[in-house]
Amino acid sequence: MQMALAAVAASLGGTLTDPTRGDVQVSSANSLANAGPGDLAFLWSDSYRDAAADSQAEAIVCRGAIPGQTCIVVEDPEAAMLTLLGAVYGQQRPQPLPGVHPAAVVSPQATLGEDASVGPGVVVEAGATIGDRTQLRAGAYIGFGVSIGNDCVVHPNVTILDRCRLGNRVVIWSGSVIGKDGFGFLQREGRHVRIPQIGTVIIEDDVEIGSLSNVARGAIEDTIIRRGVIIDDLCHVGHGSELGEYTIMVGRSGMGGSVKIGKRCLLGQDSALSTGMAMGDGSSLATNVRILYKDVPAGATMQRPVITHPPMMAKRIEASLPKLPELLRKVRRLEAEVERLTKLEETVEG
Amino acid sequence: MQMALAAVAASLGGTLTDPTRGDVQVSSANSLANAGPGDLAFLWSDSYRDAAADSQAEAIVCRGAIPGQTCIVVEDPEAAMLTLLGAVYGQQRPQPLPGVHPAAVVSPQATLGEDASVGPGVVVEAGATIGDRTQLRAGAYIGFGVSIGNDCVVHPNVTILDRCRLGNRVVIWSGSVIGKDGFGFLQREGRHVRIPQIGTVIIEDDVEIGSLSNVARGAIEDTIIRRGVIIDDLCHVGHGSELGEYTIMVGRSGMGGSVKIGKRCLLGQDSALSTGMAMGDGSSLATNVRILYKDVPAGATMQRPVITHPPMMAKRIEASLPKLPELLRKVRRLEAEVERLTKLEETVEG
Amino acid sequence: MQMALAAVAASLGGTLTDPTRGDVQVSSANSLANAGPGDLAFLWSDSYRDAAADSQAEAIVCRGAIPGQTCIVVEDPEAAMLTLLGAVYGQQRPQPLPGVHPAAVVSPQATLGEDASVGPGVVVEAGATIGDRTQLRAGAYIGFGVSIGNDCVVHPNVTILDRCRLGNRVVIWSGSVIGKDGFGFLQREGRHVRIPQIGTVIIEDDVEIGSLSNVARGAIEDTIIRRGVIIDDLCHVGHGSELGEYTIMVGRSGMGGSVKIGKRCLLGQDSALSTGMAMGDGSSLATNVRILYKDVPAGATMQRPVITHPPMMAKRIEASLPKLPELLRKVRRLEAEVERLTKLEETVEG
Repeated sequence: MQMALAAVAASLGGTLTDPTRGDVQVSSANSLANAGPGDLAFLWSDSYRDAAADSQAEAIVCRGAIPGQTCIVVEDPEAAMLTLLGAVYGQQRPQPLPGVHPAAVVSPQATLGEDASVGPGVVVEAGATIGDRTQLRAGAYIGFGVSIGNDCVVHPNVTILDRCRLGNRVVIWSGSVIGKDGFGFLQREGRHVRIPQIGTVIIEDDVEIGSLSNVARGAIEDTIIRRGVIIDDLCHVGHGSELGEYTIMVGRSGMGGSVKIGKRCLLGQDSALSTGMAMGDGSSLATNVRILYKDVPAGATMQRPVITHPPMMAKRIEASLPKLPELLRKVRRLEAEVERLTKLEETVEG
Repeated sequence: MQMALAAVAASLGGTLTDPTRGDVQVSSANSLANAGPGDLAFLWSDSYRDAAADSQAEAIVCRGAIPGQTCIVVEDPEAAMLTLLGAVYGQQRPQPLPGVHPAAVVSPQATLGEDASVGPGVVVEAGATIGDRTQLRAGAYIGFGVSIGNDCVVHPNVTILDRCRLGNRVVIWSGSVIGKDGFGFLQREGRHVRIPQIGTVIIEDDVEIGSLSNVARGAIEDTIIRRGVIIDDLCHVGHGSELGEYTIMVGRSGMGGSVKIGKRCLLGQDSALSTGMAMGDGSSLATNVRILYKDVPAGATMQRPVITHPPMMAKRIEASLPKLPELLRKVRRLEAEVERLTKLEETVEG
Repeated sequence: MQMALAAVAASLGGTLTDPTRGDVQVSSANSLANAGPGDLAFLWSDSYRDAAADSQAEAIVCRGAIPGQTCIVVEDPEAAMLTLLGAVYGQQRPQPLPGVHPAAVVSPQATLGEDASVGPGVVVEAGATIGDRTQLRAGAYIGFGVSIGNDCVVHPNVTILDRCRLGNRVVIWSGSVIGKDGFGFLQREGRHVRIPQIGTVIIEDDVEIGSLSNVARGAIEDTIIRRGVIIDDLCHVGHGSELGEYTIMVGRSGMGGSVKIGKRCLLGQDSALSTGMAMGDGSSLATNVRILYKDVPAGATMQRPVITHPPMMAKRIEASLPKLPELLRKVRRLEAEVERLTKLEETVEG
């Protein structure tokens, strides 16, 4: 990218606050803090106004002029950022050509949509159906009877096992595994016997799943990920669980089996739910929260204490915690005793 | 699957409680809650009796008749479920044919057992030995000198590194990595120097390892996973650790190096042990428990408080916790003081 | 390995304490506890002196003679261990030959260094540059425009996505994913819209990244891993984060986006930082510590209480914790009351 500020402003339908600088060239974008000469930066939230005032960026795309800075004033700086970064991104990332690479292995019993792209080392098993313009990148595995919609991207070295069903515009990042048998065993004569897992995984339209994440197949019920869900990296969706529309799982969050999560929920980094738990619509788990026994009501935000201290204090807290229940009782007794004493005093004084 | 209820009952050696419905067809199975017309459901534990009474299943396989429901009464509903789900599962999942796919790369110095199946993109290095009927699915990597027993399934995109040894009937799910060098470094002149890891990983018979799990190789001692162990997804077994027979690791549990875990232990979801810790036979860690300093005695169950609250309460607890050690001392002083006062009163009153 | 003790001592420049045993053969090495006849063991820290005294090893390499044991006394037992284990390791692990395997797919627009080794199933995309003697093992994926330095090892089934840059002597273990798009979304009209991630991942010289670890690409800023950093297995480095020189991340540690970590820091097992947090040079997080709100000062060690108890006690602590803030207030009131009573007594007595 190499573009004059005037041209950037024009392409965004915005106004350059200092028209004398219209010929100045920009070649990249960066954060307000790290941008320097030749870089654009973006201010789309007022909470970064101070950073914007101090920024060394060549120009800042924003909603209102910033004193001392060259700005490109636009109505919607978020939209402007998406447009400009999208243009840079498009130049950086060559898209694979449609067609089947000679080093791919596609079963003659599989069906490929129009302009689908199948990279080297990809394996597509019998009965699989791949939609139009969908990209299967190098080394991806698509199992027996898997169905994938249109305009999906399956990144390198993804594994999608038998009979899973993906909608349109689904993105799965490298290393992730979709459709591994759920964790279901019975104890029979002292041994663990696997319960055959006859459910599958259903992923609706516009879902994105990060790298190294795992979505297990249901035992009998299907595991369902509804439209617009976003799952980050190293996450785990248990067998037979369901995630409602537009729910977000942040990095390394997870759950056991048969968990029911509503619409537009948020699972914070490292948060988790135990088997069978539920979250109502619009509820959130803060970072590292564990839901073990009680469902989360709709709209609620759950948090846990931070409890991080220098080592000596951590040890003293730890030693104190088991004494807490008894302490509570002691204080109750003390209160009663002091109350009695107080009354006695009153008698003595009275 | 499409089968009359009478035929299902006969195949299970069970009794149909309403013989007039013997011709009714079932085509699938589902959970008690989700089953509908055409579905079988299973009741194998009395704790689901209410769900069974309300179920819309076409018929329920159970130990004793349920009022208002069509039942197939059998002695062992668990066994019946395993049989029926196994039959459905077998129909759903075509098994790969024996033989080496032309797109596999098998070293001439490797040995393949009878009826072994090697999928497309599989790499088997020199000195590897693969047992009879073992399946290496697409994209699996089998390193130098690895030995794998009979009737194993290595799912797509698994990595098994040099010299690891697997027994019979071992199942490894996609994305897992067996035999990565353990995390062992020395500090030498301000740099981290890797300790060469000359141990290996030994996995005994009937072990199952989930997807995206990691079993590190021992530095000098081997990492050992004993017969019948079940490891779930996204788990981590540290270098030189040992898991006793029939132990279970639930999703995302893990450990550092040189951990010794006894027989029939349970590591709950997200639980972890630090390097060098041990668990006695039959002991358990509840969800999210961390064993940092003290070994777990045989038979013990360890749990941690849940500590999840709405945000304001979480902040107040957090602020209070560092004051706990001092609070304990204060209450002790108060008790002494009140006791003294009480004695004084007695004197005054006496 | 099969070597006489005298030859071992000579190769290490050490002294065999019992020269009459110079012809005794050793064939392997093991830990002090597990070593037996034919095994060497190493004592490099005085904290294992008791284990050394009890060891059944054929001989112990150590700094000073141990009563009752055959020792090979050397100045630097650590260095001796590295040498001997390195020799065993070298014999165990055949190195791949230089050259491109016929089952690899290397773009004609990629550049391979001298004596680089490209294994079967490897894909190297256009614009990638691979340094001298670097090994790309079976099934590794190297994206568009990736640059990798000299003497690197990319283990089987690693994924390195577009434009990431690796220095010299970098090691990446199996299953890891480098350069996945960072987790950046905007909410627009009720939907999640991905922010195009135009940053990349820069990994400097002498970095080692374990198996199944994830390093996300920055949105605008690059994600940077400085020289000599060691990352263990199942770890997560968030988008736009930076790890200073020689920092160590132990197994399953992680962070959100834009985290800044100084030089020679330590992130313990299962520890984590939230988005935007920082750690000063030389600071440490103990196992399972979460940094959510406050940066860690240089040199500090943060720890959290262990809080693991038998189930009944865990439940009682849990029930007590929400009462803590009120308890602190109660005790303060009690103290005041008792003080008043004490003064009253003095008056009565006075």
